[in-house]
Amino acid sequence: MRNFNFFQRFSRNFRDYDSQFKLVLLCTTVSGGGLLAYGEAVATSETAVPEKKKVLVLGTGWAGTSFLRNLNDPRYEVHVVSPRNYFAFTPLLPSVTCGTVEARSIVEPVRNIFRKKHVDSRFSEAECIKIDAVNRKVYCRSNINNNSNEKQDFVVDYDYLIIAVGAQVNTFNTPGVTEHCHFLKEVEDAQRIRRTVIDCFERASLPSVSDEERKRILHFAIVGGGPTGVEFAAALHDFVSEDLVKLYPGVKDLVKITLLEAGGHILSMFDKRITAFAEDKFRRDGIDVKTGSMVVKINRRAIATDEWLRVEGTNNVYALGDCATINQRKVMEDIAAIFKKTDTDNSGTLTLKEFQEVMNDICERYPQVELYLKNKQMHGIADLLKESKGDVQKESIELNIEELKTALINVDSEMKFLPATAQVASQQGAYLAKCFNRMEECEKNPEGPIRFREEGRHRFKPFRYKHLGQFAPLGGEQTAAQLPGDWVSIGHSSQWLWYSVYASKQVSWRTRALVVSDWMRRFIFGRDSSQI
Amino acid sequence: MRNFNFFQRFSRNFRDYDSQFKLVLLCTTVSGGGLLAYGEAVATSETAVPEKKKVLVLGTGWAGTSFLRNLNDPRYEVHVVSPRNYFAFTPLLPSVTCGTVEARSIVEPVRNIFRKKHVDSRFSEAECIKIDAVNRKVYCRSNINNNSNEKQDFVVDYDYLIIAVGAQVNTFNTPGVTEHCHFLKEVEDAQRIRRTVIDCFERASLPSVSDEERKRILHFAIVGGGPTGVEFAAALHDFVSEDLVKLYPGVKDLVKITLLEAGGHILSMFDKRITAFAEDKFRRDGIDVKTGSMVVKINRRAIATDEWLRVEGTNNVYALGDCATINQRKVMEDIAAIFKKTDTDNSGTLTLKEFQEVMNDICERYPQVELYLKNKQMHGIADLLKESKGDVQKESIELNIEELKTALINVDSEMKFLPATAQVASQQGAYLAKCFNRMEECEKNPEGPIRFREEGRHRFKPFRYKHLGQFAPLGGEQTAAQLPGDWVSIGHSSQWLWYSVYASKQVSWRTRALVVSDWMRRFIFGRDSSQI
Repeated sequence: MRNFNFFQRFSRNFRDYDSQFKLVLLCTTVSGGGLLAYGEAVATSETAVPEKKKVLVLGTGWAGTSFLRNLNDPRYEVHVVSPRNYFAFTPLLPSVTCGTVEARSIVEPVRNIFRKKHVDSRFSEAECIKIDAVNRKVYCRSNINNNSNEKQDFVVDYDYLIIAVGAQVNTFNTPGVTEHCHFLKEVEDAQRIRRTVIDCFERASLPSVSDEERKRILHFAIVGGGPTGVEFAAALHDFVSEDLVKLYPGVKDLVKITLLEAGGHILSMFDKRITAFAEDKFRRDGIDVKTGSMVVKINRRAIATDEWLRVEGTNNVYALGDCATINQRKVMEDIAAIFKKTDTDNSGTLTLKEFQEVMNDICERYPQVELYLKNKQMHGIADLLKESKGDVQKESIELNIEELKTALINVDSEMKFLPATAQVASQQGAYLAKCFNRMEECEKNPEGPIRFREEGRHRFKPFRYKHLGQFAPLGGEQTAAQLPGDWVSIGHSSQWLWYSVYASKQVSWRTRALVVSDWMRRFIFGRDSSQI
Repeated sequence: MRNFNFFQRFSRNFRDYDSQFKLVLLCTTVSGGGLLAYGEAVATSETAVPEKKKVLVLGTGWAGTSFLRNLNDPRYEVHVVSPRNYFAFTPLLPSVTCGTVEARSIVEPVRNIFRKKHVDSRFSEAECIKIDAVNRKVYCRSNINNNSNEKQDFVVDYDYLIIAVGAQVNTFNTPGVTEHCHFLKEVEDAQRIRRTVIDCFERASLPSVSDEERKRILHFAIVGGGPTGVEFAAALHDFVSEDLVKLYPGVKDLVKITLLEAGGHILSMFDKRITAFAEDKFRRDGIDVKTGSMVVKINRRAIATDEWLRVEGTNNVYALGDCATINQRKVMEDIAAIFKKTDTDNSGTLTLKEFQEVMNDICERYPQVELYLKNKQMHGIADLLKESKGDVQKESIELNIEELKTALINVDSEMKFLPATAQVASQQGAYLAKCFNRMEECEKNPEGPIRFREEGRHRFKPFRYKHLGQFAPLGGEQTAAQLPGDWVSIGHSSQWLWYSVYASKQVSWRTRALVVSDWMRRFIFGRDSSQI
């Protein structure tokens, strides 16, 4: 292709100056066939150069977008398929429900994200309807109707498939939920909630409505006392008490906000100080918190992957984000293989020295071991092994396989599922992109831990989640923050931390500028209450 | 009411200090009946004070909002009924279709508009379904469904009714228009067009679509070569060539924009220089202008009013904006009455002196007379009368009724319908509010022209439209402007005039700041192409 372009440019130059360079033009015409033939020959030889690997990414949420942003090896050819042509900064969705931030300010077109990269990328707005893993094909259906109301179907080939389609909202099979509730997961949900809140205030202002009815219309119930539910309750309270109060003076006293939480406390995943502060603040604000009102069973349905985010039973299909769950390998399942690999002199017993040599690999492959050591406040492997051997000298410790089993028997209890959060999805996307960027390099020099069941080493280190902390905005310019190292902060200062973190995490300068200007606009003019 | 509140406050004071003022409390209790009786007596005497006049406004478009903003007599009690709880700055709708300006930036809640006024106002989000002019009642239906999918009906009383409901889009009964076309009249229309344009680009980017199909999908046809159609065509062209080109490089060459105009030229209501410039610019931009492709008959349906915007046959119902049309009185219909009123000495002939005394009233009551004089370049009434009398001395002119008819026979040909524009609606709203503000004053000292058919004078001067000029943005930061006095300007400088006029005309500082920041954002980051 490049050669042909060159030829075109070349000939165009001649066309522009044809009167001056007639002789040269003639030469070109004569040699044109040769040039074309050369171009073809090069094209043929170019196909001998390894073709670009086709990476198909399904989804443009946190995981998919984080993967796209971090992939930079030009030897891939990326095709992104998603029903949404944009990435949405979902942590700001509660702000969108009340108009503190505009929906458009938190979305960025996917094409804009990969336009600035050197990786060949294309996007198709469609849903995946079937995956044919044997033939490496994905069947897609466009979600835009054409004029005759038909949807376009098409097939995409892949060498690697990245599934990052997110998850459906879990209704826990509660009857009536789908018909009568609003969810808060997509940008459209947030916009719908915003319109519905205004509609409720308009309906309550109609002259024909009784006071009883008004109260019913203006009773907002929020299900879920996690950070999102708490943030939405707080945002709604601020919206009502700071803005709507001025425009709907007749109905403001009838508003009631109830927050329903299945467990015993709201924000139960946070430090107790935060929970207590939040519950106290909500009581003062008049937000009715009802805890322990129901208990439901969570059936997590997801695609199971290994610690490298590869879908179990496949070689080239990856799943990450909310749609995936890492099935961490249990130490006890592999205990025989671990013993065999560790016992380098095949003596039937392990010495401390033998163990120490593979300890790093074990901790990397089975992160629960490290967690266990940390939680038991053990300083090294010797402490762990000593547990099963009693009070002996460190250097003389020797274990047979049964004693090793006893030493490690409780380790697997430390295995934890990762939460379905933006932070996890984003880190997984970045991790996978880094693996893809270094695929060839790591193929030659694997950098992962020893394979205990097979020979050699894993190509990559397994995925490790690093928790960076969590925020829970409580309204009235106050936010609770819990950062790693049990650092807890509540109040106005953490609200400013929240502002700066969320501004800095935006995917583009455009959304950053928009979000910041939305905040400024809210400070100056308040929130808008038109039904737009 | 105020008395009762006073009583409550009074007794609460006692409750708070009951231990200290037991004696006084006793007195109050004893005299409580008296106090209440006094309160009732005052309430009765208060009804003797003239009650507030109830003004019911239907619609929150240009006319209704302009009326609300200008009404400031606290003796009125205003109830606004409209299916939209906001006012939209419609001249910026073409900008919204392409994301140069956000929908939210051009809307302002109606409640915000009258919150800052001293006039008692309330708003109900509903449609008017029936007017009972005899009993002065309007039947309304809320357009928000309640949970059981029922719509609330209610009745509103009025003393004065202002109808400013706007007009439906005229499809000229063309088959298929409603099903297959987008209109550009409401904010929702603009948002829908924006999403549809992006959808078309996404559909054309699907791998399974043929080139033929792609071309069909990316062919945008715009009907109507007036300022709105031209502005939208230009905005769409800019959107494609400045922004979408970067994100959809594969399909940009397939885009085609066609502008269909029934008449011989686009922008036919503007100066010929502007039409020529616009047609030439569009040709260079590759916008296909097809003129004279169809001729349709316009059946204007509207509520007929007199020159004071009062609905014909009523006394207290007014109609303004797109839903109304002023039925200007013809001079020839009133010619006998005019002759009688002018002939003060009952001589059967009019002298120039007699005529000059009522000339101002005639010109005010029948604006076509003034227009006729201006167009014929006549300097005064003498010139007009001379026409029918031939070459005589000014002072000796005398006309009988037949000669007066001859003199005025062509005057009524100058009567013009006002265009259905924001400018007209806005001026009508402001005019009517001023009349309402000075109702009582003008009842006593009428300031309008003489009533030719009856006795006395009209209370108010009739409505006169003052054309302030018109813009036609042509894309590429160029705008054509035609201002009064045949002042024509085309190019970048008038684009800046356009920016400043549209910024200054915003109804609130909030929308002004938003619109300006939207423009700045567009300059820096371009337009957004997410499907939000």
